Amino acid sequence: MTTFDCLTFITDYGLDDGFVAACHGVAARIAPAARLIDITHLVPPGDVRRGAAVLAQTMPYLPPAVHVAVVDPGVGTTRRGIAVQAGDAILVGPDNGLLSWAAAALGGVRRAFQLTNGELWLHPVSQTFHGRDIFVPVAAHLAAGADLLSVGTELDTGDLVTLPAPTSRVHDREAEGEVMSVDRFGNVQLSIAAADADQIGIGFGSQLVVRCGRRQLTVPYLETFAAVAPGELVAFTDSAGLISLAVNAGDAAQQLGLPPGAHVRLAAAPPG
Amino acid sequence: MTTFDCLTFITDYGLDDGFVAACHGVAARIAPAARLIDITHLVPPGDVRRGAAVLAQTMPYLPPAVHVAVVDPGVGTTRRGIAVQAGDAILVGPDNGLLSWAAAALGGVRRAFQLTNGELWLHPVSQTFHGRDIFVPVAAHLAAGADLLSVGTELDTGDLVTLPAPTSRVHDREAEGEVMSVDRFGNVQLSIAAADADQIGIGFGSQLVVRCGRRQLTVPYLETFAAVAPGELVAFTDSAGLISLAVNAGDAAQQLGLPPGAHVRLAAAPPG
Amino acid sequence: MTTFDCLTFITDYGLDDGFVAACHGVAARIAPAARLIDITHLVPPGDVRRGAAVLAQTMPYLPPAVHVAVVDPGVGTTRRGIAVQAGDAILVGPDNGLLSWAAAALGGVRRAFQLTNGELWLHPVSQTFHGRDIFVPVAAHLAAGADLLSVGTELDTGDLVTLPAPTSRVHDREAEGEVMSVDRFGNVQLSIAAADADQIGIGFGSQLVVRCGRRQLTVPYLETFAAVAPGELVAFTDSAGLISLAVNAGDAAQQLGLPPGAHVRLAAAPPG
Repeated sequence: MTTFDCLTFITDYGLDDGFVAACHGVAARIAPAARLIDITHLVPPGDVRRGAAVLAQTMPYLPPAVHVAVVDPGVGTTRRGIAVQAGDAILVGPDNGLLSWAAAALGGVRRAFQLTNGELWLHPVSQTFHGRDIFVPVAAHLAAGADLLSVGTELDTGDLVTLPAPTSRVHDREAEGEVMSVDRFGNVQLSIAAADADQIGIGFGSQLVVRCGRRQLTVPYLETFAAVAPGELVAFTDSAGLISLAVNAGDAAQQLGLPPGAHVRLAAAPPG
Repeated sequence: MTTFDCLTFITDYGLDDGFVAACHGVAARIAPAARLIDITHLVPPGDVRRGAAVLAQTMPYLPPAVHVAVVDPGVGTTRRGIAVQAGDAILVGPDNGLLSWAAAALGGVRRAFQLTNGELWLHPVSQTFHGRDIFVPVAAHLAAGADLLSVGTELDTGDLVTLPAPTSRVHDREAEGEVMSVDRFGNVQLSIAAADADQIGIGFGSQLVVRCGRRQLTVPYLETFAAVAPGELVAFTDSAGLISLAVNAGDAAQQLGLPPGAHVRLAAAPPG
Repeated sequence: MTTFDCLTFITDYGLDDGFVAACHGVAARIAPAARLIDITHLVPPGDVRRGAAVLAQTMPYLPPAVHVAVVDPGVGTTRRGIAVQAGDAILVGPDNGLLSWAAAALGGVRRAFQLTNGELWLHPVSQTFHGRDIFVPVAAHLAAGADLLSVGTELDTGDLVTLPAPTSRVHDREAEGEVMSVDRFGNVQLSIAAADADQIGIGFGSQLVVRCGRRQLTVPYLETFAAVAPGELVAFTDSAGLISLAVNAGDAAQQLGLPPGAHVRLAAAPPG
């Protein structure tokens, strides 16, 4: 059994209240030696897909850890709490798909357990705050050396809830995808990997045709958004290896009116 | 004398500037081994009652610690700085009532001291940033092992400023209270404890009549907001043991127009 | 060679995404024993002057550390990455002036190096996220004991990009400056030091004439904003030693319409 000296934590709890701190306190009491890294607590309320995407994209840069994720609109209902082993990590959270993209990024779930051992929980358990009373205490016990087998009943890994992967396909030399996220800079991240771009015959320096709804734009595909003049639109490979649209020193999401989930198609611009 | 290896920190400083980091730096220089847990720094500017409520509600989940709280609209005036011992904690901050609900939750103030020993402060002392120059340095010295008696002159515990408790009473089988807070999800926390609900004859599964101003609503009282369909209103016992109103996957505060401080009455719905 | 057990981190990455956490993870893997203090991650996107001001003003309160600063609108272009030694600190970031005010506050740059040693970086290097792939890894290696000489080629300190200092001058018994920043409370920080105030003949208790554009206001100059009644305007020496304008329990920036960069003149009010 590996022990971990790191916990990470991602939620939609926000930073205005004491919710995150209560969880930090619970973790500190159970696993005082563990380092705690907050991924973010500003996932839009209840947005499981967004939480899953941030967790999966951040995962490669985190140390081996027990990762607690709580975006849990079904808290207190029959949805299960789970702990899954994937790669060199353990993921703890609700079985609503939130963990599924991160687990896939780690090479897939090796073992999965339903959180049924109440001895690892904080009592009384609030029916609306399983983060504080179930997920964080279980994760902290794991970080402090508890065996994964102790958290509860083993599950068939095929029974776990998984989120459908974002749309992403290439056909007829066109890549199709959706807006994965919009970051603080207004950069629009697409679900289209740089590898897909190769397949449609574009490379850095190419002109790219972007189609969304009835609109069509031609933009250069370059190594970084800063390669165009301020105010100009550009496509580039972002830090997660995905094609993104940006306006240098501007807000592409606002300018293009492209919210998360919007459907987008990319193709090489015809020569000339 | 107990020593502490944990400091906690709650303020209205916000996260945009370097104010919180300056305090973290001061603490790290004086007590490098202490763990620091941020409760929140987004208390609305100058909102002493809100700071007091968040601190008191988070307190049960924090490790034994020196807790620094600064919501201090009277900084630089004659209001006193204090350190009080309550339960297994020390609370440090302005004597404006901010610490009073947390101290009560910890079983009441055992000893209180005015911060008069300038040897524990950072000089020169800014008249507008006692958090950085007085409260955090004193707390860090305490965490690093300084005796509580060293911070200054002992005070009569009866002389401390206390905030009036939130309205909360039961009469005629009706519970009366006020909106304590609105969280990120738009959930409306009332100052009415689950115990009061028992006294007016409601339990999980009951219908509840909520009166605010001239409005009157009938809502189910259930174990969690997720027990109703998305968009529906529900009353539940929240994670602090208080009755709250929510719209599942929606924003109850916005829908009901209930800001903090608003007066609310609850009663069991008549049968039929 | 000094070793450091502290890293600090300031960026414009925001808190909504996993960007900051990816950097924390990278740091934790390279320098697991280093304490990490976040200064802020809410510098307005691309606002190099604001980042420079927050870093410089917070610096005196931070422990000896390797400070990583990333407000980097030119990421991926030919702008250099640098590490500079100043006082008891090392500053790491883009060579766009961001580090220059902090270095000056630390007594000036003693040695400067261009980050050219790719062995200290995380590969593959994203062209839009040098914080994660270059600046933080280099800083973490320095915190873990790597020699400053190992980061790359030494530069002539005179070749570094420096930001023009904020306007601040005294002539004809009038102090001239600009709005440095507006904090969460709406307090308006001017680039005019308390020392300049002495030169124009004002002290605590004086009346001050504030001129901005065609407007002219007379306000008292006092030790703290809390010395006037709620709603009243006041000038005071803020926690960075600069003259600031506030409305007690109100928002001076909003009331005066003074954004960062606005030009302001101060003089003693004529007697009478």
